[in-house]
Amino acid sequence: MTPAGTPGDTPRRRGRPARKDAGNGPGARQQILDAARAQFAERGYDKTSVRGIAKAAGVDAALVHHYFGTKDEMFAAAIEVSFEPALLVTPLFTADRDHIGEQLARHFIAIWENPATRAPLLAVIRSALTHEAAATVLRSFLLRRLLGRIAGELDVPNPEFRAEMAASHMIGTAFLRYVIKAEPLASADPEEIIALVAPTIQRYLTER
Amino acid sequence: MTPAGTPGDTPRRRGRPARKDAGNGPGARQQILDAARAQFAERGYDKTSVRGIAKAAGVDAALVHHYFGTKDEMFAAAIEVSFEPALLVTPLFTADRDHIGEQLARHFIAIWENPATRAPLLAVIRSALTHEAAATVLRSFLLRRLLGRIAGELDVPNPEFRAEMAASHMIGTAFLRYVIKAEPLASADPEEIIALVAPTIQRYLTER
Repeated sequence: MTPAGTPGDTPRRRGRPARKDAGNGPGARQQILDAARAQFAERGYDKTSVRGIAKAAGVDAALVHHYFGTKDEMFAAAIEVSFEPALLVTPLFTADRDHIGEQLARHFIAIWENPATRAPLLAVIRSALTHEAAATVLRSFLLRRLLGRIAGELDVPNPEFRAEMAASHMIGTAFLRYVIKAEPLASADPEEIIALVAPTIQRYLTER
Repeated sequence: MTPAGTPGDTPRRRGRPARKDAGNGPGARQQILDAARAQFAERGYDKTSVRGIAKAAGVDAALVHHYFGTKDEMFAAAIEVSFEPALLVTPLFTADRDHIGEQLARHFIAIWENPATRAPLLAVIRSALTHEAAATVLRSFLLRRLLGRIAGELDVPNPEFRAEMAASHMIGTAFLRYVIKAEPLASADPEEIIALVAPTIQRYLTER
């Protein structure tokens, strides 16, 4: 946990709302983002408010609005940070195309295996299941930033659909392994999972 | 929605808790179950109480405890009803084993396509994501009643693991199609999905 800063940490300019280059600018922006991610993860979409995020970040609610806009836009920014590791997929395609299934399976399992990257992902999925607004934000993000990126690299019919089929398998596996904790999947060696999942991903992404 | 019965609907025996064969017995049991399923689906695991279920069913909370025990046991019974259509998988295996992937994919897509069977499933998944107790109940149910049943029919190494891999794909597909509503998957013809998913399920369940 990053300790929340207080407004007294840095000198404030009088009579003006904070500016992007203000003393508490980039630092405050990051603190707000950290606080938002933590609040959405711990409390869920519904119970998180811009006011609560501001309080946790030690800034004024107006500053949250200034940097991130509405609650939904704040949620989108938090998703963006949560998915950052998952977004590093494009370079994988420039490597060995014959093993892209294994590369992607390995990449996603690594993200899910790390509790630091897993928790925010689960929080986002949880929010999407309970709130239409959160589902809308996640949909737009997933399609534009993650699945769209993967689909753009594919040479198969209906590439978006194929990318979604691959993603659905990874999401479902994560649900059974980390949420439901269904055995033997929950205790399986990641390599065992990759060995089974990789050919499926490979088929979806490359088989014409 | 079934109209909730009131205690006045049937004569009550004085001075004794309701018995299984009491006038308000089997009927009341079903009413309680209907109310429980509706409450867990609408309000989620957390906000549902035995007292609230009793009120909605028009019975005394003691009768709920009498028939179903604790809240978790009540939840397990509601899951059981919600998954009833999914449990009808065993006969599929006695049919053409070479097309079991397609049969299962078709069976599960049909369950998810029907709003009446989809809503309670989503409610259960939502509860599992937000409450450890609900996840535990779902895990025990899934393994014992659904995946265990499928695994028992398989002739592959590590059949439980294989059944979970197949299930994870179906669950993830449902999440992207019905919760996130990611296009083109959300609007795809069920047959298109079955055509892509079936070979994957087939491979997991039969390929040695």
